Amino acid sequence: MDELSLAPDYGLSWLDASGPASDIVLSTRVRLARNLQGYPFPARARVHDRLEVLRRVEEGITRAASLAGGGVYVLKDLGPRTRRILLERRLVSRDLLGGIGNAPAPGAAVVLPGRDHLSVMVNEEDHLRLQALLSGLRLREAWRLVDAVDEELGGAFPLAYHPEFGFLTSCPTNVGTGLRASVLMHLAGLVLTKEIGRVLKGLTQVGLTFRGLYGEGSEVVGNFFQVSNQTTLGTSEEDLIEHMERVVDQVIQHERQARAVLLREAPAVTEDKIWRAYGLLAYARSLAFEEMINLLSAVRLGVSLKLLPRLRVYSLNKIMIYGQQAHLEQAAGRELLPPECDAHRASLVRKILASEGVPTSD
Amino acid sequence: MDELSLAPDYGLSWLDASGPASDIVLSTRVRLARNLQGYPFPARARVHDRLEVLRRVEEGITRAASLAGGGVYVLKDLGPRTRRILLERRLVSRDLLGGIGNAPAPGAAVVLPGRDHLSVMVNEEDHLRLQALLSGLRLREAWRLVDAVDEELGGAFPLAYHPEFGFLTSCPTNVGTGLRASVLMHLAGLVLTKEIGRVLKGLTQVGLTFRGLYGEGSEVVGNFFQVSNQTTLGTSEEDLIEHMERVVDQVIQHERQARAVLLREAPAVTEDKIWRAYGLLAYARSLAFEEMINLLSAVRLGVSLKLLPRLRVYSLNKIMIYGQQAHLEQAAGRELLPPECDAHRASLVRKILASEGVPTSD
Repeated sequence: MDELSLAPDYGLSWLDASGPASDIVLSTRVRLARNLQGYPFPARARVHDRLEVLRRVEEGITRAASLAGGGVYVLKDLGPRTRRILLERRLVSRDLLGGIGNAPAPGAAVVLPGRDHLSVMVNEEDHLRLQALLSGLRLREAWRLVDAVDEELGGAFPLAYHPEFGFLTSCPTNVGTGLRASVLMHLAGLVLTKEIGRVLKGLTQVGLTFRGLYGEGSEVVGNFFQVSNQTTLGTSEEDLIEHMERVVDQVIQHERQARAVLLREAPAVTEDKIWRAYGLLAYARSLAFEEMINLLSAVRLGVSLKLLPRLRVYSLNKIMIYGQQAHLEQAAGRELLPPECDAHRASLVRKILASEGVPTSD
Repeated sequence: MDELSLAPDYGLSWLDASGPASDIVLSTRVRLARNLQGYPFPARARVHDRLEVLRRVEEGITRAASLAGGGVYVLKDLGPRTRRILLERRLVSRDLLGGIGNAPAPGAAVVLPGRDHLSVMVNEEDHLRLQALLSGLRLREAWRLVDAVDEELGGAFPLAYHPEFGFLTSCPTNVGTGLRASVLMHLAGLVLTKEIGRVLKGLTQVGLTFRGLYGEGSEVVGNFFQVSNQTTLGTSEEDLIEHMERVVDQVIQHERQARAVLLREAPAVTEDKIWRAYGLLAYARSLAFEEMINLLSAVRLGVSLKLLPRLRVYSLNKIMIYGQQAHLEQAAGRELLPPECDAHRASLVRKILASEGVPTSD
């Protein structure tokens, strides 16, 4: 992984599906938006300010035990493929990369400490975005992890804070706690039983929102929904987390009920859908990313329903991450044209399935 | 097979793919249209005439060595499922069955002799339709077989014949030799390379025509084309057969070239298509007939291209016949509603593939 070769598996510990309810909740993410006092927010900052912020963060993290053992990676010093790999692992945002085709802005950096579920973006929309990424539904634990980082960094330099509003951020929607918690949920049962619309509407009524696999503005593919809180103001972090936990628990119950309904009322159609997806994943010689995600969705449902007991969710998670373009190019050691990429993707899928004992076309 | 239990495999010897070029030419059929002198053609015949024709045929075949060892089956005495099985095996026509939902007309019968590649329809459009059905491209042999039956029956009763026009038939297009030869061809290569239009146009220019899997008026599915002669008049049987043989040979060459082009110029797309079809056939839990035929087409191409060396064409032919509704109902011992039928079809496909060593979802 180029410059990241010291930490080639960074950000991947959630793949092991070890967390609670990980057949439905792939991962939990909690991030805190923070800004250093006395510096303009990144969007208005001059190069000098941005570099100064970066310098102070570099200094600060050397004293933060929670971020020990890692490094600060300045994005423009990384190769384009490495940057895209960080994006595909959700360790950096598209914004931090400077958008498609652009170079990252001066001072844009990511801190990757020794513990692979933590990361800090520097000079994104805010000076600091502290993030924890864990397997399954672990909102409280993820929050405690970023809270510890926040405590330590707050000791290293004063943070922009207003006694009435709370933490100050670039975008007003983040003012207050600066906390955004999101869980990546697989809601295939609710989609197939056509209950999803009702459930999503319910989410928005209790202050939550949803997005596709790649966050804001991305489409929902493969029945994977990122559910997150919409407001960060006027409530404590604990209340936010507790509220969200309660709602997500309800969505999980709805999803489990929907899956039971599928098995009870449409077993033939459901099994057919799942086995067809399995057959295509195991035998296709070319897979576009979106098709792969859709097939994985059906197979994932099959594993959860115990129709495909041989497969582990871990392997399906692995396919989701390593089946992305930059990861495939990294494995190939070169850039891949779209048709090549689809062929490499299909080949990777067969390889991972074969390691699970699935017969494939190889 | 109800009343046909004495000959449950009747009409299936072509499945073994033993004939020449049987990877492209599934089967050869030759039929002769004949009428008994002194009786109105079936469309105009009264019940009495039709029964009289049947009686004379029954008498006549007892003296025909070529038809020895079988029986005469009056269609209205057979169960509806048995009649549909005969249709699915191409031993009788839809016309002879009286059309969908109707009972067969009086005197409508089929002679199934001891040799399973021969059959005679009685009181269809003509009094007699003698048919031979063989594996692969064997026009001459098929013609000789029906010619021998024709000779013997012509000795048993005088046939309607005009010294200038030849044999007289209900429909003017059959007058003369009364011979229709047809070969069932799998032209997937020409379809995929988009050369098929040119080839089919060429066929019509040399007096041949094409139809779908189920003859006149049926659509082409799965790239299976029935190629047959259009004219029966003004040329000898030998000339007709020889001409057709030459043209079909050319089509086979075109198809082989097209397959070579696919392997050379689009190997990835071709392999992907073939392996996906294989994966779906092996894992689907529900298959509509038309989808099955389309998937079989791709897999058949794969076997011919040696991409799926483990599979035999025999098994693919077997699936085509036994995957039809009446055959599935026969195996189930009861009528099947459409969704059940699709499930039974998928199950049969998996069973036959499993017998070839293919891993399936069972």
